[in-house]
Amino acid sequence: MGRVTVRRRITSIDVGVPRELQRADTLSVEEPLELRVGGTPLTVTMRTPGHDIELVHGFLLTEGLIRSLEDIAVARYCEGAVVSGESGYDENTYNVIDVTLAPGVPPPAEAATRNFLTSSSCGVCGKGSIEQLRAQSIYDLRTDPTEIPAKVVVELPDALRREQRSFDRTGGLHAAGLFTADGELLVVREDVGRHNAVDKVIGWALLAGRLPARGSVLMVSGRASFELTQKAIMAGIPCLAAVSAPSSLAVDCAEDAGMTLVGFVRGSRLNVYAGHDRVTTA
Amino acid sequence: MGRVTVRRRITSIDVGVPRELQRADTLSVEEPLELRVGGTPLTVTMRTPGHDIELVHGFLLTEGLIRSLEDIAVARYCEGAVVSGESGYDENTYNVIDVTLAPGVPPPAEAATRNFLTSSSCGVCGKGSIEQLRAQSIYDLRTDPTEIPAKVVVELPDALRREQRSFDRTGGLHAAGLFTADGELLVVREDVGRHNAVDKVIGWALLAGRLPARGSVLMVSGRASFELTQKAIMAGIPCLAAVSAPSSLAVDCAEDAGMTLVGFVRGSRLNVYAGHDRVTTA
Repeated sequence: MGRVTVRRRITSIDVGVPRELQRADTLSVEEPLELRVGGTPLTVTMRTPGHDIELVHGFLLTEGLIRSLEDIAVARYCEGAVVSGESGYDENTYNVIDVTLAPGVPPPAEAATRNFLTSSSCGVCGKGSIEQLRAQSIYDLRTDPTEIPAKVVVELPDALRREQRSFDRTGGLHAAGLFTADGELLVVREDVGRHNAVDKVIGWALLAGRLPARGSVLMVSGRASFELTQKAIMAGIPCLAAVSAPSSLAVDCAEDAGMTLVGFVRGSRLNVYAGHDRVTTA
Repeated sequence: MGRVTVRRRITSIDVGVPRELQRADTLSVEEPLELRVGGTPLTVTMRTPGHDIELVHGFLLTEGLIRSLEDIAVARYCEGAVVSGESGYDENTYNVIDVTLAPGVPPPAEAATRNFLTSSSCGVCGKGSIEQLRAQSIYDLRTDPTEIPAKVVVELPDALRREQRSFDRTGGLHAAGLFTADGELLVVREDVGRHNAVDKVIGWALLAGRLPARGSVLMVSGRASFELTQKAIMAGIPCLAAVSAPSSLAVDCAEDAGMTLVGFVRGSRLNVYAGHDRVTTA
Protein backbone atom coordinates (compact mmCIF):
# COMPACT_ATOMS: atom_id res chain seq x y z
CA MET A 1 0.00 0.00 0.00
CA GLY A 2 1.33 3.40 -0.97
CA ARG A 3 2.45 5.92 1.58
CA VAL A 4 1.01 9.39 2.09
CA THR A 5 4.40 11.06 2.42
CA VAL A 6 7.98 10.30 1.39
CA ARG A 7 11.34 11.78 2.38
CA ARG A 8 13.76 13.17 -0.20
CA ARG A 9 17.13 14.96 -0.16
CA ILE A 10 16.81 18.58 -1.22
CA THR A 11 18.95 21.70 -1.37
CA SER A 12 17.66 24.65 0.59
CA ILE A 13 18.93 28.03 -0.59
CA ASP A 14 18.60 31.45 1.03
CA VAL A 15 19.99 34.08 -1.31
CA GLY A 16 20.84 36.25 1.68
CA VAL A 17 23.01 33.49 3.20
CA PRO A 18 26.25 32.26 1.58
CA ARG A 19 25.87 28.54 2.32
CA GLU A 20 23.47 26.04 0.72
CA LEU A 21 21.84 23.55 3.05
CA GLN A 22 21.47 19.88 2.08
CA ARG A 23 18.62 18.37 4.06
CA ALA A 24 15.76 15.87 3.96
CA ASP A 25 12.28 17.14 3.11
CA THR A 26 8.88 15.48 3.36
CA LEU A 27 6.81 15.35 0.18
CA SER A 28 3.17 14.48 -0.44
CA VAL A 29 2.91 11.28 -2.42
CA GLU A 30 1.13 11.54 -5.77
CA GLU A 31 0.40 8.34 -7.70
CA PRO A 32 -2.06 7.43 -10.45
CA LEU A 33 -5.15 5.44 -9.52
CA GLU A 34 -6.82 3.65 -12.38
CA LEU A 35 -10.52 2.94 -11.96
CA ARG A 36 -11.98 0.06 -13.92
CA VAL A 37 -15.65 -0.80 -14.04
CA GLY A 38 -16.37 -4.42 -14.93
CA GLY A 39 -12.75 -4.78 -16.05
CA THR A 40 -12.90 -1.84 -18.47
CA PRO A 41 -10.67 1.18 -17.70
CA LEU A 42 -12.84 4.23 -16.99
CA THR A 43 -10.47 6.91 -15.73
CA VAL A 44 -7.09 7.60 -14.14
CA THR A 45 -6.75 10.19 -11.39
CA MET A 46 -3.52 11.41 -9.82
CA ARG A 47 -4.13 10.99 -6.11
CA THR A 48 -2.47 10.57 -2.72
CA PRO A 49 -2.73 6.86 -1.82
CA GLY A 50 -5.12 5.94 0.99
CA HIS A 51 -8.91 5.80 1.31
CA ASP A 52 -9.00 4.62 -2.30
CA ILE A 53 -12.21 2.64 -1.86
CA GLU A 54 -13.90 5.79 -0.54
CA LEU A 55 -12.42 7.72 -3.46
CA VAL A 56 -13.92 5.49 -6.13
CA HIS A 57 -17.28 5.38 -4.35
CA GLY A 58 -17.35 9.17 -4.14
CA PHE A 59 -16.21 9.56 -7.74
CA LEU A 60 -18.84 7.18 -9.15
CA LEU A 61 -21.61 8.85 -7.14
CA THR A 62 -20.66 12.44 -7.93
CA GLU A 63 -20.22 11.65 -11.63
CA GLY A 64 -23.74 10.23 -11.68
CA LEU A 65 -22.56 6.71 -12.54
CA ILE A 66 -24.12 5.17 -9.42
CA ARG A 67 -27.03 6.42 -7.36
CA SER A 68 -26.65 4.46 -4.12
CA LEU A 69 -24.32 2.12 -2.28
CA GLU A 70 -26.38 -0.84 -3.52
CA ASP A 71 -25.34 -0.04 -7.10
CA ILE A 72 -21.85 -1.37 -6.34
CA ALA A 73 -21.51 -5.14 -5.89
CA VAL A 74 -17.74 -5.27 -5.30
CA ALA A 75 -14.91 -2.71 -5.24
CA ARG A 76 -11.38 -4.04 -4.76
CA TYR A 77 -7.75 -3.63 -5.79
CA CYS A 78 -7.03 -5.44 -9.02
CA GLU A 79 -5.00 -8.59 -8.30
CA GLY A 80 -3.24 -8.60 -11.63
CA ALA A 81 -1.86 -5.08 -11.25
CA VAL A 82 1.68 -5.91 -10.15
CA VAL A 83 5.22 -4.63 -10.49
CA SER A 84 8.47 -6.46 -9.74
CA GLY A 85 9.18 -5.79 -6.09
CA GLU A 86 12.57 -5.37 -4.45
CA SER A 87 12.14 -8.83 -2.93
CA GLY A 88 12.15 -10.36 -6.40
CA TYR A 89 8.46 -11.25 -6.13
CA ASP A 90 5.63 -9.41 -7.82
CA GLU A 91 3.98 -6.80 -5.61
CA ASN A 92 0.53 -5.32 -6.07
CA THR A 93 0.76 -1.66 -7.03
CA TYR A 94 -2.51 -0.89 -5.20
CA ASN A 95 -2.99 1.61 -8.00
CA VAL A 96 -5.81 -0.14 -9.85
CA ILE A 97 -9.32 -0.66 -8.47
CA ASP A 98 -11.93 -2.75 -10.24
CA VAL A 99 -15.58 -2.08 -9.46
CA THR A 100 -18.30 -4.60 -10.26
CA LEU A 101 -21.70 -2.94 -10.58
CA ALA A 102 -24.81 -4.62 -9.21
CA PRO A 103 -27.07 -6.43 -11.69
CA GLY A 104 -29.21 -3.97 -13.65
CA VAL A 105 -26.96 -0.94 -13.09
CA PRO A 106 -26.05 0.51 -16.51
CA PRO A 107 -22.29 0.48 -17.30
CA PRO A 108 -20.49 3.83 -17.73
CA ALA A 109 -20.68 3.74 -21.53
CA GLU A 110 -24.49 3.78 -21.36
CA ALA A 111 -24.60 6.08 -18.35
CA ALA A 112 -22.40 8.55 -20.22
CA THR A 113 -25.40 9.71 -22.23
CA ARG A 114 -26.57 11.46 -19.07
CA ASN A 115 -23.06 12.63 -18.12
CA PHE A 116 -22.48 16.37 -18.46
CA LEU A 117 -18.95 16.05 -19.81
CA THR A 118 -19.86 13.91 -22.76
CA SER A 119 -23.49 14.66 -23.56
CA SER A 120 -23.15 18.12 -25.06
CA SER A 121 -24.39 17.69 -28.60
CA CYS A 122 -24.00 21.06 -30.26
CA GLY A 123 -22.10 23.22 -27.84
CA VAL A 124 -21.55 23.71 -24.17
CA CYS A 125 -22.07 26.80 -22.12
CA GLY A 126 -22.41 27.55 -18.45
CA LYS A 127 -26.18 27.46 -18.63
CA GLY A 128 -26.30 24.13 -20.43
CA SER A 129 -23.96 22.59 -17.88
CA ILE A 130 -26.16 23.70 -15.02
CA GLU A 131 -29.32 22.37 -16.64
CA GLN A 132 -27.70 19.02 -17.19
CA LEU A 133 -26.45 18.91 -13.64
CA ARG A 134 -29.94 19.61 -12.35
CA ALA A 135 -31.33 16.77 -14.44
CA GLN A 136 -28.69 14.45 -12.99
CA SER A 137 -28.94 15.22 -9.27
CA ILE A 138 -31.06 12.83 -7.24
CA TYR A 139 -31.37 14.91 -4.08
CA ASP A 140 -33.34 18.14 -3.74
CA LEU A 141 -31.41 20.58 -1.58
CA ARG A 142 -34.36 22.98 -1.49
CA THR A 143 -36.17 20.64 0.89
CA ASP A 144 -33.28 20.70 3.37
CA PRO A 145 -34.22 23.26 6.07
CA THR A 146 -30.73 23.28 7.64
CA GLU A 147 -29.66 26.59 9.17
CA ILE A 148 -25.96 27.22 9.77
CA PRO A 149 -24.80 29.93 12.19
CA ALA A 150 -22.09 32.18 10.69
CA LYS A 151 -20.19 31.86 13.98
CA VAL A 152 -19.96 28.09 13.37
CA VAL A 153 -18.71 28.51 9.79
CA VAL A 154 -15.85 30.84 10.74
CA GLU A 155 -14.51 28.17 13.11
CA LEU A 156 -14.35 25.48 10.39
CA PRO A 157 -11.06 26.44 8.67
CA ASP A 158 -9.16 26.07 11.94
CA ALA A 159 -10.98 22.83 12.75
CA LEU A 160 -10.03 21.49 9.31
CA ARG A 161 -6.45 22.66 9.66
CA ARG A 162 -6.06 20.91 13.04
CA GLU A 163 -6.88 17.59 11.38
CA GLN A 164 -4.49 18.05 8.44
CA ARG A 165 -1.69 15.88 9.72
CA SER A 166 0.04 15.42 6.40
CA PHE A 167 -0.16 19.09 5.48
CA ASP A 168 1.83 19.93 8.60
CA ARG A 169 4.68 17.83 7.26
CA THR A 170 4.50 18.68 3.56
CA GLY A 171 2.56 21.91 3.04
CA GLY A 172 1.32 20.26 -0.13
CA LEU A 173 -2.13 18.74 0.40
CA HIS A 174 -5.68 19.92 -0.10
CA ALA A 175 -8.23 19.05 2.56
CA ALA A 176 -11.99 18.60 2.68
CA GLY A 177 -14.01 18.11 5.85
CA LEU A 178 -17.64 17.27 6.50
CA PHE A 179 -19.18 18.93 9.57
CA THR A 180 -22.61 19.05 11.14
CA ALA A 181 -24.40 22.42 11.13
CA ASP A 182 -23.32 22.95 14.73
CA GLY A 183 -19.67 22.43 13.86
CA GLU A 184 -19.11 18.82 14.88
CA LEU A 185 -16.47 17.18 12.70
CA LEU A 186 -17.61 14.05 10.87
CA VAL A 187 -14.62 13.31 8.62
CA VAL A 188 -11.55 14.94 7.07
CA ARG A 189 -9.61 13.71 4.04
CA GLU A 190 -6.44 15.06 2.41
CA ASP A 191 -5.16 14.65 -1.14
CA VAL A 192 -2.86 16.30 -3.68
CA GLY A 193 -6.03 16.74 -5.78
CA ARG A 194 -8.80 18.89 -4.36
CA HIS A 195 -11.51 16.93 -6.16
CA ASN A 196 -10.08 13.69 -4.78
CA ALA A 197 -10.24 14.99 -1.19
CA VAL A 198 -13.93 15.80 -1.76
CA ASP A 199 -14.61 12.43 -3.42
CA LYS A 200 -13.02 10.66 -0.44
CA VAL A 201 -15.25 12.57 1.99
CA ILE A 202 -18.38 11.85 -0.05
CA GLY A 203 -17.36 8.22 -0.51
CA TRP A 204 -16.97 7.94 3.26
CA ALA A 205 -20.48 9.35 3.71
CA LEU A 206 -21.90 6.97 1.10
CA LEU A 207 -20.25 3.96 2.76
CA ALA A 208 -21.48 5.15 6.18
CA GLY A 209 -25.09 5.34 4.93
CA ARG A 210 -25.12 9.11 5.43
CA LEU A 211 -26.33 10.24 1.99
CA PRO A 212 -28.04 12.53 1.29
CA ALA A 213 -25.84 14.46 3.72
CA ARG A 214 -28.67 16.67 4.96
CA GLY A 215 -27.79 19.10 7.73
CA SER A 216 -24.07 19.10 6.88
CA VAL A 217 -21.42 21.59 5.76
CA LEU A 218 -18.54 20.68 3.46
CA MET A 219 -15.47 22.81 4.18
CA VAL A 220 -12.64 22.88 1.60
CA SER A 221 -9.15 24.30 1.99
CA GLY A 222 -8.94 26.02 -1.39
CA ARG A 223 -11.32 27.54 -3.89
CA ALA A 224 -14.87 26.57 -4.82
CA SER A 225 -14.94 25.49 -8.45
CA PHE A 226 -17.86 24.21 -10.50
CA GLU A 227 -16.53 20.69 -10.06
CA LEU A 228 -16.52 20.79 -6.24
CA THR A 229 -19.95 22.46 -6.18
CA GLN A 230 -21.32 19.77 -8.47
CA LYS A 231 -19.93 17.04 -6.23
CA ALA A 232 -21.49 18.57 -3.10
CA ILE A 233 -24.87 18.87 -4.82
CA MET A 234 -24.75 15.27 -5.98
CA ALA A 235 -24.17 14.19 -2.36
CA GLY A 236 -27.08 16.25 -1.03
CA ILE A 237 -24.83 18.55 0.99
CA PRO A 238 -26.75 21.81 1.65
CA CYS A 239 -23.71 24.05 2.28
CA LEU A 240 -20.25 24.30 0.71
CA ALA A 241 -17.75 26.60 2.42
CA ALA A 242 -14.34 27.50 0.98
CA VAL A 243 -11.34 29.31 2.38
CA SER A 244 -10.83 31.07 -0.96
CA ALA A 245 -12.87 32.42 -3.88
CA PRO A 246 -15.68 30.69 -5.74
CA SER A 247 -15.91 30.80 -9.53
CA SER A 248 -18.85 32.31 -11.42
CA LEU A 249 -20.13 28.90 -12.47
CA ALA A 250 -19.89 27.55 -8.92
CA VAL A 251 -22.15 30.38 -7.76
CA ASP A 252 -24.65 29.94 -10.61
CA CYS A 253 -24.71 26.22 -10.01
CA ALA A 254 -25.26 26.57 -6.24
CA GLU A 255 -28.04 29.11 -6.75
CA ASP A 256 -29.80 26.90 -9.23
CA ALA A 257 -29.63 23.86 -6.96
CA GLY A 258 -30.63 25.70 -3.79
CA MET A 259 -27.25 25.10 -2.17
CA THR A 260 -25.59 27.61 0.16
CA LEU A 261 -22.15 28.65 -1.06
CA VAL A 262 -19.79 30.49 1.29
CA GLY A 263 -16.34 31.77 0.34
CA PHE A 264 -13.40 33.66 1.80
CA VAL A 265 -13.95 32.21 5.28
CA ARG A 266 -11.13 34.03 7.06
CA GLY A 267 -10.86 35.16 10.66
CA SER A 268 -14.30 36.34 11.79
CA ARG A 269 -15.48 37.02 8.23
CA LEU A 270 -17.16 35.19 5.38
CA ASN A 271 -18.99 35.97 2.14
CA VAL A 272 -22.27 34.29 1.21
CA TYR A 273 -22.54 33.84 -2.57
CA ALA A 274 -25.70 31.73 -2.81
CA GLY A 275 -28.43 30.41 -0.52
CA HIS A 276 -28.18 33.34 1.90
CA ASP A 277 -31.21 32.24 3.94
CA ARG A 278 -29.43 29.28 5.50
CA VAL A 279 -26.69 31.38 7.11
CA THR A 280 -27.89 32.85 10.41
CA THR A 281 -26.25 35.63 12.37
CA ALA A 282 -28.56 35.79 15.40
CA MET B 1 -16.66 36.18 -26.23
CA GLY B 2 -16.79 35.31 -22.55
CA ARG B 3 -15.53 37.66 -19.92
CA VAL B 4 -12.74 36.97 -17.44
CA THR B 5 -14.63 38.38 -14.46
CA VAL B 6 -18.27 39.04 -13.55
CA ARG B 7 -19.96 41.05 -10.79
CA ARG B 8 -22.46 39.47 -8.39
CA ARG B 9 -24.44 40.60 -5.34
CA ILE B 10 -23.15 38.92 -2.17
CA THR B 11 -23.68 39.15 1.58
CA SER B 12 -20.58 39.91 3.60
CA ILE B 13 -20.73 38.82 7.24
CA ASP B 14 -18.37 39.59 10.11
CA VAL B 15 -19.44 37.60 13.17
CA GLY B 16 -17.94 40.29 15.40
CA VAL B 17 -20.14 42.98 13.81
CA PRO B 18 -23.95 43.06 14.19
CA ARG B 19 -24.84 44.15 10.64
CA GLU B 20 -24.64 42.16 7.42
CA LEU B 21 -23.33 43.99 4.35
CA GLN B 22 -24.93 43.57 0.93
CA ARG B 23 -22.40 44.42 -1.75
CA ALA B 24 -21.16 43.59 -5.23
CA ASP B 25 -18.23 41.21 -5.59
CA THR B 26 -16.05 40.34 -8.58
CA LEU B 27 -15.81 36.65 -9.48
CA SER B 28 -13.51 34.77 -11.83
CA VAL B 29 -15.46 33.40 -14.75
CA GLU B 30 -15.38 29.62 -15.16
CA GLU B 31 -16.93 28.10 -18.30
CA PRO B 32 -16.53 24.80 -20.10
CA LEU B 33 -14.44 24.69 -23.26
CA GLU B 34 -15.07 21.73 -25.50
CA LEU B 35 -12.20 20.72 -27.75
CA ARG B 36 -13.04 18.83 -30.92
CA VAL B 37 -10.48 17.37 -33.29
CA GLY B 38 -11.77 16.87 -36.82
CA GLY B 39 -15.31 17.39 -35.52
CA THR B 40 -15.06 14.66 -32.87
CA PRO B 41 -15.29 15.78 -29.21
CA LEU B 42 -11.99 15.05 -27.45
CA THR B 43 -12.26 16.71 -24.04
CA VAL B 44 -14.02 19.41 -22.01
CA THR B 45 -12.04 21.59 -19.63
CA MET B 46 -13.46 24.11 -17.15
CA ARG B 47 -11.52 27.25 -17.93
CA THR B 48 -11.54 31.05 -17.72
CA PRO B 49 -12.44 32.37 -21.21
CA GLY B 50 -9.67 34.07 -23.14
CA HIS B 51 -6.55 32.84 -24.96
CA ASP B 52 -8.53 29.75 -25.92
CA ILE B 53 -6.57 29.16 -29.11
CA GLU B 54 -3.35 29.16 -27.06
CA LEU B 55 -5.03 26.82 -24.58
CA VAL B 56 -5.89 24.17 -27.15
CA HIS B 57 -2.45 24.42 -28.78
CA GLY B 58 -0.78 23.96 -25.40
CA PHE B 59 -3.11 21.13 -24.43
CA LEU B 60 -2.57 19.18 -27.65
CA LEU B 61 1.20 19.58 -27.44
CA THR B 62 1.57 18.68 -23.77
CA GLU B 63 -0.73 15.66 -24.17
CA GLY B 64 1.51 14.43 -26.98
CA LEU B 65 -1.25 14.69 -29.60
CA ILE B 66 0.74 17.11 -31.77
CA ARG B 67 4.50 17.58 -31.99
CA SER B 68 4.80 20.96 -33.69
CA LEU B 69 2.78 23.95 -34.85
CA GLU B 70 2.70 22.47 -38.36
CA ASP B 71 0.63 19.54 -37.06
CA ILE B 72 -2.40 21.87 -36.78
CA ALA B 73 -3.99 23.03 -40.03
CA VAL B 74 -6.82 25.10 -38.51
CA ALA B 75 -8.05 25.91 -34.99
CA ARG B 76 -11.21 27.98 -34.68
CA TYR B 77 -14.40 28.46 -32.70
CA CYS B 78 -17.14 26.12 -33.87
CA GLU B 79 -19.72 28.11 -35.84
CA GLY B 80 -22.58 25.82 -34.96
CA ALA B 81 -22.10 26.15 -31.21
CA VAL B 82 -24.80 28.70 -30.44
CA VAL B 83 -27.29 29.59 -27.74
CA SER B 84 -30.32 31.86 -27.97
CA GLY B 85 -29.06 35.34 -27.22
CA GLU B 86 -30.91 38.10 -25.40
CA SER B 87 -31.32 39.86 -28.74
CA GLY B 88 -33.45 36.98 -29.99
CA TYR B 89 -30.74 35.89 -32.45
CA ASP B 90 -28.42 32.95 -31.95
CA GLU B 91 -25.08 33.86 -30.41
CA ASN B 92 -21.89 31.83 -30.58
CA THR B 93 -20.99 30.46 -27.13
CA TYR B 94 -17.26 30.67 -27.96
CA ASN B 95 -17.06 27.54 -25.80
CA VAL B 96 -16.32 25.03 -28.55
CA ILE B 97 -13.10 24.93 -30.60
CA ASP B 98 -12.62 22.62 -33.55
CA VAL B 99 -9.08 21.72 -34.56
CA THR B 100 -8.26 20.30 -37.99
CA LEU B 101 -5.00 18.36 -37.97
CA ALA B 102 -2.58 18.61 -40.88
CA PRO B 103 -2.57 15.75 -43.40
CA GLY B 104 -0.70 12.73 -42.04
CA VAL B 105 -1.04 13.64 -38.36
CA PRO B 106 -2.69 10.71 -36.53
CA PRO B 107 -6.05 11.53 -34.91
CA PRO B 108 -6.33 11.33 -31.10
CA ALA B 109 -7.88 7.86 -31.12
CA GLU B 110 -4.73 6.46 -32.72
CA ALA B 111 -2.40 8.76 -30.85
CA ALA B 112 -3.98 7.59 -27.59
CA THR B 113 -1.98 4.40 -27.78
CA ARG B 114 1.06 6.46 -26.90
CA ASN B 115 -0.83 8.52 -24.31
CA PHE B 116 0.11 7.81 -20.71
CA LEU B 117 -3.41 8.10 -19.35
CA THR B 118 -4.86 5.44 -21.57
CA SER B 119 -2.00 3.13 -22.44
CA SER B 120 -1.54 1.34 -19.13
CA SER B 121 -2.26 -2.27 -19.92
CA CYS B 122 -1.96 -4.16 -16.67
CA GLY B 123 -1.55 -1.55 -14.01
CA VAL B 124 -0.20 1.90 -13.46
CA CYS B 125 2.36 3.04 -10.97
CA GLY B 126 4.51 6.09 -10.56
CA LYS B 127 7.45 4.40 -12.26
CA GLY B 128 5.39 3.29 -15.24
CA SER B 129 4.01 6.78 -15.70
CA ILE B 130 7.48 8.26 -15.77
CA GLU B 131 8.75 5.72 -18.28
CA GLN B 132 5.85 6.44 -20.59
CA LEU B 133 6.36 10.17 -20.25
CA ARG B 134 10.01 9.75 -21.18
CA ALA B 135 9.05 7.79 -24.27
CA GLN B 136 6.63 10.54 -25.25
CA SER B 137 8.75 13.65 -24.81
CA ILE B 138 10.38 15.00 -27.95
CA TYR B 139 12.86 17.39 -26.33
CA ASP B 140 15.89 16.37 -24.31
CA LEU B 141 16.27 18.70 -21.34
CA ARG B 142 19.65 17.19 -20.46
CA THR B 143 21.20 18.97 -23.43
CA ASP B 144 19.97 22.37 -22.21
CA PRO B 145 22.93 24.00 -20.42
CA THR B 146 20.82 26.82 -18.94
CA GLU B 147 21.96 28.10 -15.54
CA ILE B 148 19.53 30.04 -13.38
CA PRO B 149 20.76 32.25 -10.53
CA ALA B 150 18.83 31.65 -7.27
CA LYS B 151 18.60 35.41 -6.86
CA VAL B 152 16.62 35.59 -10.12
CA VAL B 153 14.23 32.80 -9.07
CA VAL B 154 13.30 34.46 -5.76
CA GLU B 155 12.16 37.55 -7.68
CA LEU B 156 9.75 35.61 -9.92
CA PRO B 157 6.76 35.25 -7.55
CA ASP B 158 6.50 39.03 -7.19
CA ALA B 159 7.00 39.55 -10.92
CA LEU B 160 4.19 37.05 -11.59
CA ARG B 161 1.94 38.64 -8.99
CA ARG B 162 2.37 42.10 -10.51
CA GLU B 163 0.99 40.82 -13.81
CA GLN B 164 -2.02 39.07 -12.25
CA ARG B 165 -4.59 41.69 -13.02
CA SER B 166 -7.64 39.49 -12.58
CA PHE B 167 -6.38 37.99 -9.34
CA ASP B 168 -6.30 41.45 -7.81
CA ARG B 169 -10.02 41.74 -8.40
CA THR B 170 -11.13 38.20 -7.59
CA GLY B 171 -8.49 36.43 -5.51
CA GLY B 172 -9.52 33.35 -7.47
CA LEU B 173 -7.15 32.69 -10.33
CA HIS B 174 -4.03 30.62 -10.80
CA ALA B 175 -1.16 32.09 -12.79
CA ALA B 176 1.72 30.75 -14.82
CA GLY B 177 4.52 32.86 -16.26
CA LEU B 178 7.38 32.11 -18.59
CA PHE B 179 10.62 33.98 -17.89
CA THR B 180 14.12 33.97 -19.32
CA ALA B 181 16.91 32.69 -17.08
CA ASP B 182 17.84 36.27 -16.25
CA GLY B 183 14.31 37.07 -15.09
CA GLU B 184 12.83 38.78 -18.15
CA LEU B 185 9.10 38.18 -18.38
CA LEU B 186 7.94 36.56 -21.64
CA VAL B 187 4.27 35.87 -20.93
CA VAL B 188 1.78 35.47 -18.07
CA ARG B 189 -1.58 33.72 -18.25
CA GLU B 190 -4.31 33.34 -15.58
CA ASP B 191 -7.05 30.72 -15.28
CA VAL B 192 -9.33 29.11 -12.70
CA GLY B 193 -7.52 25.86 -13.60
CA ARG B 194 -3.81 25.67 -12.93
CA HIS B 195 -3.20 23.25 -15.81
CA ASN B 196 -5.06 25.63 -18.16
CA ALA B 197 -2.84 28.55 -17.16
CA VAL B 198 0.21 26.42 -18.03
CA ASP B 199 -1.35 25.19 -21.30
CA LYS B 200 -2.03 28.81 -22.30
CA VAL B 201 1.59 29.78 -21.65
CA ILE B 202 2.91 26.78 -23.57
CA GLY B 203 0.42 27.38 -26.39
CA TRP B 204 1.64 30.97 -26.58
CA ALA B 205 5.23 29.73 -26.87
CA LEU B 206 4.28 27.19 -29.54
CA LEU B 207 2.46 29.83 -31.59
CA ALA B 208 5.41 32.22 -31.17
CA GLY B 209 7.85 29.62 -32.52
CA ARG B 210 9.61 29.42 -29.18
CA LEU B 211 9.55 25.67 -28.57
CA PRO B 212 11.55 23.96 -27.24
CA ALA B 213 11.63 26.71 -24.61
CA ARG B 214 15.33 26.33 -23.90
CA GLY B 215 16.80 28.79 -21.42
CA SER B 216 13.46 29.53 -19.77
CA VAL B 217 11.85 29.20 -16.33
CA LEU B 218 8.15 28.45 -15.84
CA MET B 219 6.87 30.00 -12.59
CA VAL B 220 3.50 28.82 -11.22
CA SER B 221 1.45 30.35 -8.43
CA GLY B 222 0.49 27.10 -6.69
CA ARG B 223 1.94 23.65 -6.26
CA ALA B 224 4.00 21.55 -8.64
CA SER B 225 2.03 18.43 -9.52
CA PHE B 226 2.97 15.60 -11.86
CA GLU B 227 0.67 17.10 -14.48
CA LEU B 228 2.37 20.52 -14.52
CA THR B 229 5.81 18.92 -14.51
CA GLN B 230 4.83 16.73 -17.44
CA LYS B 231 3.58 19.76 -19.38
CA ALA B 232 6.82 21.69 -18.78
CA ILE B 233 8.92 18.73 -19.92
CA MET B 234 6.82 18.31 -23.08
CA ALA B 235 7.52 21.97 -23.92
CA GLY B 236 11.27 21.65 -23.38
CA ILE B 237 11.28 24.01 -20.38
CA PRO B 238 14.43 23.31 -18.33
CA CYS B 239 13.17 24.74 -15.01
CA LEU B 240 9.81 24.70 -13.22
CA ALA B 241 9.48 26.88 -10.12
CA ALA B 242 6.47 26.83 -7.78
CA VAL B 243 5.40 29.01 -4.89
CA SER B 244 4.25 25.93 -2.98
CA ALA B 245 5.17 22.27 -2.55
CA PRO B 246 5.92 19.72 -5.26
CA SER B 247 4.49 16.20 -5.13
CA SER B 248 6.64 13.06 -4.97
CA LEU B 249 5.83 12.16 -8.57
CA ALA B 250 6.64 15.67 -9.81
CA VAL B 251 10.11 15.34 -8.28
CA ASP B 252 10.70 11.82 -9.67
CA CYS B 253 9.52 12.94 -13.06
CA ALA B 254 11.73 16.06 -13.11
CA GLU B 255 14.77 14.06 -12.01
CA ASP B 256 14.21 11.47 -14.67
CA ALA B 257 13.83 14.07 -17.42
CA GLY B 258 16.77 16.22 -16.32
CA MET B 259 14.48 19.14 -15.44
CA THR B 260 15.19 21.50 -12.55
CA LEU B 261 12.31 21.62 -10.06
CA VAL B 262 12.21 24.40 -7.47
CA GLY B 263 9.52 24.75 -4.78
CA PHE B 264 8.58 26.96 -1.84
CA VAL B 265 9.94 30.10 -3.51
CA ARG B 266 9.20 32.54 -0.71
CA GLY B 267 10.99 35.72 0.30
CA SER B 268 14.72 35.14 -0.17
CA ARG B 269 14.39 31.35 0.05
CA LEU B 270 13.77 28.39 -2.23
CA ASN B 271 14.14 24.61 -2.22
CA VAL B 272 15.70 22.71 -5.12
CA TYR B 273 14.09 19.28 -5.51
CA ALA B 274 15.67 18.12 -8.77
CA GLY B 275 18.32 19.28 -11.23
CA HIS B 276 20.38 21.09 -8.57
CA ASP B 277 23.23 21.86 -10.95
CA ARG B 278 21.28 24.47 -12.88
CA VAL B 279 20.65 26.69 -9.86
CA THR B 280 23.62 28.92 -9.18
CA THR B 281 24.31 30.92 -6.03
CA ALA B 282 27.51 32.69 -6.99
